[in-house]
Amino acid sequence: MPSLIQERSVGTPEMIQVFSDEALVRAALAFEAALAEATAAEGLISTGEAESIEEACRALPDIVELAESSAHAGSMAIALIAGLRERIAATDPRAAQTLHMGATSQDVLDTALMLQTKSAVALVERDLHPMLGCLALLAERHAGTPMLGRTLLQSARPITFGLKVSQWLVGLHSAAKRLRREATGALTLQLGGPVGTRAGLAGKGPAIAARMAAALGLADPQLPWHTRRDGIAGTAAALGILNGTVAKIARDVSLMAQNELSETLEPRMPGRGGSSSMPHKRNPTGCQIALSAQIRAPGLVSSMLSAMPHEHERALGGWQAEAPVLAELFLLTHGSIVAMANAIEGLEVQTTVMQSNLAAAQVGQDSGEAIALVTLALKNFRMDR
Amino acid sequence: MPSLIQERSVGTPEMIQVFSDEALVRAALAFEAALAEATAAEGLISTGEAESIEEACRALPDIVELAESSAHAGSMAIALIAGLRERIAATDPRAAQTLHMGATSQDVLDTALMLQTKSAVALVERDLHPMLGCLALLAERHAGTPMLGRTLLQSARPITFGLKVSQWLVGLHSAAKRLRREATGALTLQLGGPVGTRAGLAGKGPAIAARMAAALGLADPQLPWHTRRDGIAGTAAALGILNGTVAKIARDVSLMAQNELSETLEPRMPGRGGSSSMPHKRNPTGCQIALSAQIRAPGLVSSMLSAMPHEHERALGGWQAEAPVLAELFLLTHGSIVAMANAIEGLEVQTTVMQSNLAAAQVGQDSGEAIALVTLALKNFRMDR
Amino acid sequence: MPSLIQERSVGTPEMIQVFSDEALVRAALAFEAALAEATAAEGLISTGEAESIEEACRALPDIVELAESSAHAGSMAIALIAGLRERIAATDPRAAQTLHMGATSQDVLDTALMLQTKSAVALVERDLHPMLGCLALLAERHAGTPMLGRTLLQSARPITFGLKVSQWLVGLHSAAKRLRREATGALTLQLGGPVGTRAGLAGKGPAIAARMAAALGLADPQLPWHTRRDGIAGTAAALGILNGTVAKIARDVSLMAQNELSETLEPRMPGRGGSSSMPHKRNPTGCQIALSAQIRAPGLVSSMLSAMPHEHERALGGWQAEAPVLAELFLLTHGSIVAMANAIEGLEVQTTVMQSNLAAAQVGQDSGEAIALVTLALKNFRMDR
Amino acid sequence: MPSLIQERSVGTPEMIQVFSDEALVRAALAFEAALAEATAAEGLISTGEAESIEEACRALPDIVELAESSAHAGSMAIALIAGLRERIAATDPRAAQTLHMGATSQDVLDTALMLQTKSAVALVERDLHPMLGCLALLAERHAGTPMLGRTLLQSARPITFGLKVSQWLVGLHSAAKRLRREATGALTLQLGGPVGTRAGLAGKGPAIAARMAAALGLADPQLPWHTRRDGIAGTAAALGILNGTVAKIARDVSLMAQNELSETLEPRMPGRGGSSSMPHKRNPTGCQIALSAQIRAPGLVSSMLSAMPHEHERALGGWQAEAPVLAELFLLTHGSIVAMANAIEGLEVQTTVMQSNLAAAQVGQDSGEAIALVTLALKNFRMDR
Repeated sequence: MPSLIQERSVGTPEMIQVFSDEALVRAALAFEAALAEATAAEGLISTGEAESIEEACRALPDIVELAESSAHAGSMAIALIAGLRERIAATDPRAAQTLHMGATSQDVLDTALMLQTKSAVALVERDLHPMLGCLALLAERHAGTPMLGRTLLQSARPITFGLKVSQWLVGLHSAAKRLRREATGALTLQLGGPVGTRAGLAGKGPAIAARMAAALGLADPQLPWHTRRDGIAGTAAALGILNGTVAKIARDVSLMAQNELSETLEPRMPGRGGSSSMPHKRNPTGCQIALSAQIRAPGLVSSMLSAMPHEHERALGGWQAEAPVLAELFLLTHGSIVAMANAIEGLEVQTTVMQSNLAAAQVGQDSGEAIALVTLALKNFRMDR
Repeated sequence: MPSLIQERSVGTPEMIQVFSDEALVRAALAFEAALAEATAAEGLISTGEAESIEEACRALPDIVELAESSAHAGSMAIALIAGLRERIAATDPRAAQTLHMGATSQDVLDTALMLQTKSAVALVERDLHPMLGCLALLAERHAGTPMLGRTLLQSARPITFGLKVSQWLVGLHSAAKRLRREATGALTLQLGGPVGTRAGLAGKGPAIAARMAAALGLADPQLPWHTRRDGIAGTAAALGILNGTVAKIARDVSLMAQNELSETLEPRMPGRGGSSSMPHKRNPTGCQIALSAQIRAPGLVSSMLSAMPHEHERALGGWQAEAPVLAELFLLTHGSIVAMANAIEGLEVQTTVMQSNLAAAQVGQDSGEAIALVTLALKNFRMDR
Repeated sequence: MPSLIQERSVGTPEMIQVFSDEALVRAALAFEAALAEATAAEGLISTGEAESIEEACRALPDIVELAESSAHAGSMAIALIAGLRERIAATDPRAAQTLHMGATSQDVLDTALMLQTKSAVALVERDLHPMLGCLALLAERHAGTPMLGRTLLQSARPITFGLKVSQWLVGLHSAAKRLRREATGALTLQLGGPVGTRAGLAGKGPAIAARMAAALGLADPQLPWHTRRDGIAGTAAALGILNGTVAKIARDVSLMAQNELSETLEPRMPGRGGSSSMPHKRNPTGCQIALSAQIRAPGLVSSMLSAMPHEHERALGGWQAEAPVLAELFLLTHGSIVAMANAIEGLEVQTTVMQSNLAAAQVGQDSGEAIALVTLALKNFRMDR
Repeated sequence: MPSLIQERSVGTPEMIQVFSDEALVRAALAFEAALAEATAAEGLISTGEAESIEEACRALPDIVELAESSAHAGSMAIALIAGLRERIAATDPRAAQTLHMGATSQDVLDTALMLQTKSAVALVERDLHPMLGCLALLAERHAGTPMLGRTLLQSARPITFGLKVSQWLVGLHSAAKRLRREATGALTLQLGGPVGTRAGLAGKGPAIAARMAAALGLADPQLPWHTRRDGIAGTAAALGILNGTVAKIARDVSLMAQNELSETLEPRMPGRGGSSSMPHKRNPTGCQIALSAQIRAPGLVSSMLSAMPHEHERALGGWQAEAPVLAELFLLTHGSIVAMANAIEGLEVQTTVMQSNLAAAQVGQDSGEAIALVTLALKNFRMDR
């Protein structure tokens, strides 16, 4: 979306920053700098040449110009490297010739995407963890708070609010662990050269890759993964599942916030959740963000899966489709988490209304088993954390 | 995507502009100005008040500030109108109170989306029509150019290149007509007020809607469509189908451009289609854009369909999800069309290679029926245009 | 799904029949019979040969055996025709050689799919039309029945129940018209031969196609459409939109059926909507079917769009993917329509509860504008029908 | 799909059996039998009552009748249990009353789905492992077989065929491990009762669940997961990724099988890969199955993700949508694996054609680095297996 207003309607400023032009270009430049340093360390280029390259990689090119030349060339890497080479050549022509040694466009762009993904996962986890803590406290506090359980959107039998929250907690914890697991597998350097053989590096490919991975804070994949996309597809799927898990909480909170139920309300925030025509309203804005994200995320995951059959050694169309889809998934997921973390943190729990709704349903009051399950859920959560 | 580089990798500058913050806000302001003018014309507010409002609607607010306040409020309309009202109140307090009369946030945002959609469809059609003309000429020129027909990716029987192009032409023409048809149905004003009754307009709702529709260049839907989304879902589906149709051309061109076939080549353009590591290459960059768009579009259409069951009188999450998805579909579709229009316009058709590939396959040479079908296809196309 | 229980959980027996093996094979045999008749009428084969073929096409082969041989061959048409040819050869060897003249597997299978689609659309429309009538009556009866309008799942302002129903009606009518429009364009014969040239028919291809189309009750597409799939993609999208439109009704009915609202209830049917553990419950089973279908339909539409870029003259994988997806969409859509048609026909509308819920919300009572909109909606619907 | 021919066009007979009515009903009956046994072991019912129930659970009800009554009731569990109870009551009325004690429909259906999933995963893995072994041998044999590397569908630089196969191998191995990981987490018993509290089991819920899980060969989830669907969503995503990984192999094989390349050919099998009109053809039928499955799988994964926000304690529509989607994903994935396992096992590798294609491209011959990467890939694969 070329609109900041639209992006901010779901995305957080920090996540928008992670997938900004500046961050993308800096990540691509970090790849080239790390490559220069590693090839120098392995004796393929001189230290001076590496320094010339690293120096040039510190400056950010003009983004609008780069966007145009990238669009023309069909690849940002080509345009970026051409500009970089020209700049280096002005002062160190020999260094300019060693720039991007043994690498290909996709090496730069995949590695840049992984650097962005690493930052993005860190943001998601930074905000997920307090939300998990918040849910655990809420479950504990309301372990025995009786309320009406509902199934197929009909009144059913008594539960406790703590049990409902425990289910949210256990689901979110599981989804968080899946993201960590997938990201751990996916966050690797890309270095393969034109056809994934690591040719052109005088047999030092593995050593150079190991150095670059260490320098950039990524894992060394041993084998290039130009056409093996299960790592990023798995990360995308984990984000989709996380989205669905947060949206389940939003679905429940928004249903309970219906005026006729009034069991939970998002926290009052001046200027939030109002209406342009009905100032008295208190809209569940956090839930709106999460439910809106949930409508969009599944289709994005399917796009990522559709991209998987990359042709031959590097694909036509497939890999070019992935980065914007993954970025969108991170924007949606992080926005959804932050919105619901805030909603949960300040959630108004109307225990007396819960009690009266339960009484009105005339389905009994028993809560012993629910409390036992909450206790079990919290114990498991704390042990596994 | 908060990255211009990513947007430009598929989207055209013009389509990016259509869905920019500025265009969005200008469209929303146009709604408020048209509403003021119409309510004045119907005698609900004074001409002076309307002029005060229209005057204020000419100025563009600070976008970054508006993005933040919109994100906080949960709706761009709320934030925009609050700022507008404040500005009007400074000089004409009574006008300020009449701003946004009878309307709700979704009226503004749906109408703005339709205004953007109208511009977007116009751009798509502007570039589709010459592409259709180009394909017709190409089909005519090569009506009798023999080549190998291939099925299930295997050599099959002779066709002519003109017949292949005729199929592209007929498909694209049909997809273009579907978009026109859907857009014609969808491009309507939204005006319903908070719950879609057009209350608060002194019974003049229909007259006001008719005036606004005329002023804004949209159709008058008679009934508000806050929760009837088949119009925009149909537009999204038509874009998805258009994408798939263009991608079919790209699939064929890219397969024929394989070096072992070498039957069609995208036009040579300095600086395009190169490789950061293999400067001799001539990558089918137009096809890459179209095939990449095709990987992403189907999932976006499914998101649009997933949004459809809007709750009650105005939805929570559903309608907030649609605008960015529709924008993304337009970016992809227009980018794909422009890329392939250029590829087709300058396509290098290697008729002698086609001839020798056909001969090598030893499947005969007959082309009479193919020529007849091309003639028929072109006649139908020209009559129906 | 290889499970009748699963199919019947959403699909109707009639639609299951439309997409049964028997119906599929009968449709394929109808193609071969029509081809024989048409080639005889055009003098390419003798009347006696045509009669031998038509005679053989009346018998149904063993389905289990055919399924196995089709799976092995990679195409049902190949296995079916081989068996058919063998049977004809036993009595009329010359006729056996003329079987399937000029045709290819995809001609048979695409035409069969269109014959099934024609029956499927007829079923959908048969059940849609009374549902539209039912909604119109309901809207009329409750044009002035006041109820609470709700937005973003919060109490908002008064509407009338008739207005809500009018929106359902207008949406459903529009979605029904889209399906008709798309089906009208799509329901065409397929006849192109191996590479879509109609070679091997002695130049009589167009005449034969016209005869076959008339005999089979399909339109004559003039040009084969082996790789132009916008017709069936458009039909799939229309089904997806129809699904979403019906699900919007289900979403509303199920929300209003919540015990705390109790404004509309699905009709009581002995043995339906119960619970295996809570016999007192009255689950909104019709809504469940429609909402479940809506979860599945968007992804199926995206699959259909993903299939579009067919390679060269006939695709590898793309066209083989379409038939089961389209069948599934028809099963879901028809099941959803029938379930909600029944729910609407016997809907219990609790007007006094609506009244008291509205009063409790303290948002006023005005309904004049709503009634005017209902009147307008009904007038337009009846004129356009 | 209510058509065996369609199912068998991609699905294997064994997987069709896993998701057949019979297997579904047997799994549901196994749940009830295990519940009876466990409640008896915990002293809630007598051993005689348990035996009566277990005895009744050995007989299979009439499937067509059950499908109808399930469709009417809105849940297979309700219809199945009603019939079962009636049958038990005929001989042991007290046992009949204890049937399904403390359980709800979703307990039965979720557990049945997990039992089917367990069988399905076992089938997938049974056929994946020899395919991995086959790929490892192929990679080893062709570690040094030179061929042309291709990028963006253009000739690029030399690789070895073994390197290409190594990438297939490593990708498939990774996707297989993801499925195992997800299935291990997901394959748990469901037992929660109406609202997930395990009420009605005299506080013995955990003990009963542990006994049932052990008896049925599933894990004990400790907490019911009626609305936590990340386990089955994760399994679906793993299948989607596995599909994409197999389709990458099919994409490559089918491209290399183009007559102009002729580098790899699917094995010759009498009666397979032919054409109804061109008997000389040798279509890549295995690839067709895998590529067709890949077109359909991503949309199914998105459906599964769309189902995730289950309402309250048990959902309306969401959980009813999942089982058929998961079944379809298993059908597609297993069919795809078996098709490509056969294609790979008998793959004709045309090493001299590879050599001449490489020579014709004039991009050099070097293969040292490729061989080193193959060695590394095989070492890692064998260690990790």
